[in-house]
Amino acid sequence: MSLTAPLHGVVPPVCTPLDRDGEVDTASLARLVEHLVGGGVHGLFALGSTSEVAYLTDDQRGTVLETVVNATDGRVPVLAGVIDTTTARVVEHARTAARLGADALVATAPFYTRTHPKEIAGHFRRLRAAVDLPLFAYDIPVAVHSKLSAALIRELAEDGTLAGLKDSSGDEGGLRRLLVGLGGRDGRARGPAPHFSVLTGSELTVDAALLAGADGVVPGIGNVDPAGYVRLYDAARAGDWTTAAREQERLIELFAMVDAGPEADMGRSSSALGSFKAALRLLGVIDDGATVFPQIQLSAESVALVSQRLRGAGLPPVR
Amino acid sequence: MSLTAPLHGVVPPVCTPLDRDGEVDTASLARLVEHLVGGGVHGLFALGSTSEVAYLTDDQRGTVLETVVNATDGRVPVLAGVIDTTTARVVEHARTAARLGADALVATAPFYTRTHPKEIAGHFRRLRAAVDLPLFAYDIPVAVHSKLSAALIRELAEDGTLAGLKDSSGDEGGLRRLLVGLGGRDGRARGPAPHFSVLTGSELTVDAALLAGADGVVPGIGNVDPAGYVRLYDAARAGDWTTAAREQERLIELFAMVDAGPEADMGRSSSALGSFKAALRLLGVIDDGATVFPQIQLSAESVALVSQRLRGAGLPPVR
Amino acid sequence: MSLTAPLHGVVPPVCTPLDRDGEVDTASLARLVEHLVGGGVHGLFALGSTSEVAYLTDDQRGTVLETVVNATDGRVPVLAGVIDTTTARVVEHARTAARLGADALVATAPFYTRTHPKEIAGHFRRLRAAVDLPLFAYDIPVAVHSKLSAALIRELAEDGTLAGLKDSSGDEGGLRRLLVGLGGRDGRARGPAPHFSVLTGSELTVDAALLAGADGVVPGIGNVDPAGYVRLYDAARAGDWTTAAREQERLIELFAMVDAGPEADMGRSSSALGSFKAALRLLGVIDDGATVFPQIQLSAESVALVSQRLRGAGLPPVR
Amino acid sequence: MSLTAPLHGVVPPVCTPLDRDGEVDTASLARLVEHLVGGGVHGLFALGSTSEVAYLTDDQRGTVLETVVNATDGRVPVLAGVIDTTTARVVEHARTAARLGADALVATAPFYTRTHPKEIAGHFRRLRAAVDLPLFAYDIPVAVHSKLSAALIRELAEDGTLAGLKDSSGDEGGLRRLLVGLGGRDGRARGPAPHFSVLTGSELTVDAALLAGADGVVPGIGNVDPAGYVRLYDAARAGDWTTAAREQERLIELFAMVDAGPEADMGRSSSALGSFKAALRLLGVIDDGATVFPQIQLSAESVALVSQRLRGAGLPPVR
Repeated sequence: MSLTAPLHGVVPPVCTPLDRDGEVDTASLARLVEHLVGGGVHGLFALGSTSEVAYLTDDQRGTVLETVVNATDGRVPVLAGVIDTTTARVVEHARTAARLGADALVATAPFYTRTHPKEIAGHFRRLRAAVDLPLFAYDIPVAVHSKLSAALIRELAEDGTLAGLKDSSGDEGGLRRLLVGLGGRDGRARGPAPHFSVLTGSELTVDAALLAGADGVVPGIGNVDPAGYVRLYDAARAGDWTTAAREQERLIELFAMVDAGPEADMGRSSSALGSFKAALRLLGVIDDGATVFPQIQLSAESVALVSQRLRGAGLPPVR
Repeated sequence: MSLTAPLHGVVPPVCTPLDRDGEVDTASLARLVEHLVGGGVHGLFALGSTSEVAYLTDDQRGTVLETVVNATDGRVPVLAGVIDTTTARVVEHARTAARLGADALVATAPFYTRTHPKEIAGHFRRLRAAVDLPLFAYDIPVAVHSKLSAALIRELAEDGTLAGLKDSSGDEGGLRRLLVGLGGRDGRARGPAPHFSVLTGSELTVDAALLAGADGVVPGIGNVDPAGYVRLYDAARAGDWTTAAREQERLIELFAMVDAGPEADMGRSSSALGSFKAALRLLGVIDDGATVFPQIQLSAESVALVSQRLRGAGLPPVR
Repeated sequence: MSLTAPLHGVVPPVCTPLDRDGEVDTASLARLVEHLVGGGVHGLFALGSTSEVAYLTDDQRGTVLETVVNATDGRVPVLAGVIDTTTARVVEHARTAARLGADALVATAPFYTRTHPKEIAGHFRRLRAAVDLPLFAYDIPVAVHSKLSAALIRELAEDGTLAGLKDSSGDEGGLRRLLVGLGGRDGRARGPAPHFSVLTGSELTVDAALLAGADGVVPGIGNVDPAGYVRLYDAARAGDWTTAAREQERLIELFAMVDAGPEADMGRSSSALGSFKAALRLLGVIDDGATVFPQIQLSAESVALVSQRLRGAGLPPVR
Repeated sequence: MSLTAPLHGVVPPVCTPLDRDGEVDTASLARLVEHLVGGGVHGLFALGSTSEVAYLTDDQRGTVLETVVNATDGRVPVLAGVIDTTTARVVEHARTAARLGADALVATAPFYTRTHPKEIAGHFRRLRAAVDLPLFAYDIPVAVHSKLSAALIRELAEDGTLAGLKDSSGDEGGLRRLLVGLGGRDGRARGPAPHFSVLTGSELTVDAALLAGADGVVPGIGNVDPAGYVRLYDAARAGDWTTAAREQERLIELFAMVDAGPEADMGRSSSALGSFKAALRLLGVIDDGATVFPQIQLSAESVALVSQRLRGAGLPPVR
């Protein structure tokens, strides 16, 4: 499904279910796609950080993307993360993604290396030139340890390099300044980059981002409750901000599952991904809640807390 | 004016005008207080970061607070920043502030030293015990290099240590989780800490913070356009979120004055304070736009850009 | 005692003993000065980070400096830390230090604020102009969150603003580049800044710093074992690097006292200062090992581990 | 050449020369290997950060390692970097490296993700179990944004997971504490991990690291002047620390080539690698000084400064 208009709405980063051998569980992954599309989402983001892309071999990445594209079957666009250290390596992932049927690419700035903004601009431009698919910049300083400046994003939006931004920077003030600079909120065309799409990865302040003029959201916990984010999005689009805020608050209560248990002390990354996957298993969507090695698995106690959070949010576990 | 109810609304951090000798210009400061109170603000925060408190000697701090308290004359509450490295030093500032008539205190976590959360809790508790004024925690990691956790804030809200939070952390997701945890948005009493007041220092996302249930805002650029922030606040309180967002966007365009000129390359801190003070001079509120040594002063070119931003926001300079 | 030649040798940052009420214990402090001067040190640094300067009120700082100057009685130079957020506040401390008889001043870059290198240069220059005492720059990014560049230090050394550097940055490669740039190791005059003195605060690599051409060391654990650092220094000056390294290794074993007990988990700052003061109490030098509020005190278990480290290093406790 | 004893001495991270198309120039790379082995180095580290490993595709990595192994022909051990985000991806690189004849592996902690120390331990253990080659931990926080603790290194040294450490952390105090903990300096067997090898990546303080008991060094600028680092190492091993320090100082003057020209403002990483490769071209070792896209290339002005630094260090350019 090609992106004929700016991407908008709820675009969850699809979790990657594993089987008992740690390989991609394609049957569970196809069920997860059904769960999400059935929940009304507007697109899917495969091979993002929440998909544990950094833990998957190239073969596993291919299996994931092929499974998501096939299961989606054109009902919504599929964005593919092409996450690697620098340009030449990312281009290889991008070619594979195009061959496997992705509708758009999502790439970060280079990481491991220290890279100047001019070099980052060159990185995105070469990537855009190498593979003819809409390209989203993925601003995720917590992973790549540099921030994409508003000036850089605007330059690459206006010259057509970028089709959009996935902003996981947590810098809401900076995002707001970018949105004001781009112009065109509430469905009116943005000025110099009319088709540019801004998606927030800040899943706890989606009502605020939509009020500010963002086009959509990429919520990790949208794996668990896609319909909730769709309700939030629909209320916001209808201008019913109070309902949007209430739905956001319910989702924040649900999100507290990431604090579950003693492994929360071991760092948010593991526990967040682990709790999302545990929730999907408890809801009967996927068969196993394991995360990729070397991540430490959730304890039974934490899984119980995840279960409790699901009940509290009106999503009763089926096991 | 005592704080009989939770503090709410627009509470600008009052700039500190200087005379040609670099001393506090009390006449200009009194005019600035009139400008703010006349603009409809709900409180004043003297001796905050925007007041250049870290640059002022103890004598100068006393002059500032005395001037603000006298000029305000009880029309709105005056909060006093008590900013110093650790507890004993902060207590001394707090005693002075009480003597000079402050209505509440605003204190950060210790800085220069590395301080454990348990020690930070002890810091706020001893401060509250030492001086009988409502105490606000000032969460400003960019200055003190530690973040106050939601758990710590809730603990100190619920045991009565804190009357409120001024959140300048920029962590909007964390703030949202705190607000959901505290409960009681839209004027209903918060659960276990019914009088606790949450003010955001993120002046570019105030509509979002109010939608999320914050009680008010401490906007640096509210020095320049207090009436704009009051309109934003009133629209939000009336549930007119579209108007609130439009007003926020106008204020963001105005805020772009901080990017003015070549000294913007020298770091945001200097240019932001310098541009606010330049704007106040251009508007005829204060006599001189200088910032405290060793900050480098705005160039004429930058002042011209500030002037341009003022015109663009409908605030024509008078000089 | 004026600094007629570049400062060199062992210059411990003097701990600040407290009495049961948390006030400065001047009798213990005078005994500590005797312990240090008797150990052969070449200078004393009062009111540094290890002295808990950031925890002391202005009155307490005055008491400390007066006590150290009087107890030292001109036998070695006394450097005074003048630690505060920005220039005007630091100048006030500097004037007090001069009045109380300090032989030199030690100042950091501004903190709490974000300050451009040009502004930092202005800060040191105004400080040097305001008070006529030799001025040392204190490079301590862990506390002030900016690093003094080699270019800035060289500029301020060559124009006579600075008499020396106390380098607590931990950037040994950068220090080495600075030393090569300054020239003049092994007692030969440095080129353009012949009297400039470089002291390392990295107490675990003092042999290395001296091999690299540093003039001396400011070792926190030199409070506990001043004679050990003097032996290290003397061996290095004699070119006996193997002996110097052996002594450094013994001191590293002693330094492991900072890892003592469960409060080590609470952050190095508290446990390091607490263990030094506990050791001084165990050695009979000071009466009480308490650190300033709100720092959490060492447990009995940790004090036992400090005692064990003292024995292991040949410094048997007397209580 | 198998590692029958702990690795020691000078082990340069081999630069990766490129041809005009940006592909690996194998002829130049073979000449560089001759330059290094001819300079007396004790081992070679292919596919490290200085080799621009993060910029190379898997095919290019294979070409590099094959070329280095063949050109070395068993005269010294060849270590291969296996740099990727997490365990499964690193294991794939490790299997390739083993197949291509590497004598040892060098792996970092996971990056892009946030990883707990227990997970990092699992990462190294699984890697060691998967491929039967000596494994070095590569501590490089500037690239991976986590620090390997001394406790973790000791645990993995003592249980046989690790054969050594390449320490590029810049934390010389921490390295010293580790070395004291491991025991056995000056050729005597280390206690519980007798064959463990500690190599420093801090190329400006090698004399200090050897004095502290390190076994060797991995110097980036050793590509340019391998014989200089061998002289430094030999002097240190002979206990002639003054000669070692003098040689280190000459190499520091040479290292100043990384500050060359305006692109130094663009970040150290680009200019350092670019200046090393420019120097190798000027010395006639490789044909082209280009770095991998998207890195910005050195200007002619900067190349002239590199040339000047070479002359100053007694290494006259041949072109």
